[in-house]
Amino acid sequence: MYESIAVVGATGAVGTIILELLEKRNFPYKTIKFLASKRSAGKTVTFKGQPHTIEELTPDSFVGVQLAIASTPDETARDFIPEAVKRGTLVIDESGYWRMDPDVPLVIPEVNAAAAKNASKGIISSPNCSTTQLVVAVKPLHDFAKVKRIVVSTYQAVSGAGVVGISDLQNGVKAMIEGKEFACECFPFPIAGNCIPQIGSVKEKGYTSEELKLLYETRKILGDDSIKVCPTAVRVPVANCHSESILVETEKKITVEKARELFASMPGVIVQDDAAQKLYPMPHQCTDRDEVFVGRIREDLSYDNGLAFWCVSDNLRKGAATNAVQIAEYLQQ
Amino acid sequence: MYESIAVVGATGAVGTIILELLEKRNFPYKTIKFLASKRSAGKTVTFKGQPHTIEELTPDSFVGVQLAIASTPDETARDFIPEAVKRGTLVIDESGYWRMDPDVPLVIPEVNAAAAKNASKGIISSPNCSTTQLVVAVKPLHDFAKVKRIVVSTYQAVSGAGVVGISDLQNGVKAMIEGKEFACECFPFPIAGNCIPQIGSVKEKGYTSEELKLLYETRKILGDDSIKVCPTAVRVPVANCHSESILVETEKKITVEKARELFASMPGVIVQDDAAQKLYPMPHQCTDRDEVFVGRIREDLSYDNGLAFWCVSDNLRKGAATNAVQIAEYLQQ
Repeated sequence: MYESIAVVGATGAVGTIILELLEKRNFPYKTIKFLASKRSAGKTVTFKGQPHTIEELTPDSFVGVQLAIASTPDETARDFIPEAVKRGTLVIDESGYWRMDPDVPLVIPEVNAAAAKNASKGIISSPNCSTTQLVVAVKPLHDFAKVKRIVVSTYQAVSGAGVVGISDLQNGVKAMIEGKEFACECFPFPIAGNCIPQIGSVKEKGYTSEELKLLYETRKILGDDSIKVCPTAVRVPVANCHSESILVETEKKITVEKARELFASMPGVIVQDDAAQKLYPMPHQCTDRDEVFVGRIREDLSYDNGLAFWCVSDNLRKGAATNAVQIAEYLQQ
Repeated sequence: MYESIAVVGATGAVGTIILELLEKRNFPYKTIKFLASKRSAGKTVTFKGQPHTIEELTPDSFVGVQLAIASTPDETARDFIPEAVKRGTLVIDESGYWRMDPDVPLVIPEVNAAAAKNASKGIISSPNCSTTQLVVAVKPLHDFAKVKRIVVSTYQAVSGAGVVGISDLQNGVKAMIEGKEFACECFPFPIAGNCIPQIGSVKEKGYTSEELKLLYETRKILGDDSIKVCPTAVRVPVANCHSESILVETEKKITVEKARELFASMPGVIVQDDAAQKLYPMPHQCTDRDEVFVGRIREDLSYDNGLAFWCVSDNLRKGAATNAVQIAEYLQQ
């Protein structure tokens, strides 16, 4: 039982689901507070049937708070987390800011739960949404056959960009139907009816920040810097759930049958793999689900020890809220 | 100058654009007729400002017809083309039915135009839309550095499934906004706001017919059966233009600079490659264009001789109508 917890970013796309999960999963705590930026402070959220006032996030918000689950922009996380830690709060952070800090564990409970116990800096990071589903799916293959290389192309939902990403799609679609012009607020180009092959800013060697997370976070979580990744991250006009076309090359061959068995034995993975019967994961059917779904499992036609598959997960849940809440639950075990 | 030409499937999504191109490009012919299924026969199309009545497609439609450009379902192409050929008509066929016949050349004019001169069976096939843009982009890399392997994940527009595919998306989006139920006519699942990781039927080793076209047609057009391909074909909620995330492995290393130079020198390719300035190809901007667009050109982080890029093309144009009309034009040179 946590004495006192705080949800930071309680009004955001992920924060909203964190509240839902804390309620639904009967998360153990004595007192709870809801923090957000000045813009949202004073608003009311309903939690367990009761209205709660959102407090403004300040350093002193954390006095007496044992655990905070935070989903904020990177810059906010950079600034407030050291203050929270100074006041004795353990922070589970959804942002990208602290993930690659060597003293901050980057945790997916099904994959490397124990790392959460070594939060020497008082911070535990939850991985980027597109990385989490990739690593959950790849983990059992890696344990069995050692993954040497991953080629991944993503089909990422607009909810990954938050509430304003969702409204860009909704308003864009309406404008398209009505034949009107529409100025996006979140994306650099209209996303309705489009694919945008850039997520995040451009970093080393022409790869975007989102793509490099698929490389560096994967290595850190699996604890294996020898894994090579060729990532391509693309935004598609889907409201929620990221999809990924994944190819893994392994040291040892994995047959399709063995892969199905490995996936099925992995906690948090659901196999939907019978394309002839039109069974495969799709965003429509994975939304509001906490698991990672895999299907279209095929032997690579281009490499002996290659395995191709398709992976879908709710990026706001396992990709964010669910994973953070699972970390908090694990620490209480 | 062709004496007499016919457009078969003149009312379809591709047929409509064939007419537009014949008009716009001032295609050389003396007489023209418009053929379609019984369902469309009797309807009127406007061509060069004049109304023309659609005739029903029958074997005798081809008496005296020198050249037919056809876009029909595979079964229609299976049945009518031998009848047309018997009557002395050369058929440029968009369907999948004849493509892998060893006596039927599979032609992309920028890649293997000369093959069109060897239509010993009276049939020239135009490749599948997703293959055409892939091969146009890969060709200059292959010539320079020999492509050994291609990993491709597609983001395919609904227009590839024809008029009914487009209406499935439009009606689905409207229903979604109005909160209504909507039964798809074309796709097995709602495509609005979704990704469907199956195009075509499931064939060998769990790969779909669409995916295997990316393998076998690529080999045939490039005349190199040693090329290996790992294909994943996915339908996305985009009205028009297919996108592809492509990784090629080559015998010789290709730097990003060299790749840009090779792409730029390829007829029919337009390079849009400056992600930091938000310049890359997207469906919205490539629709109604006849070229193949490439961008996001990167050295593969996972393999020394790998090159990753993003490729978009109007699947109804270069992926179908434009390519067929270009073949017909080439034969007149």
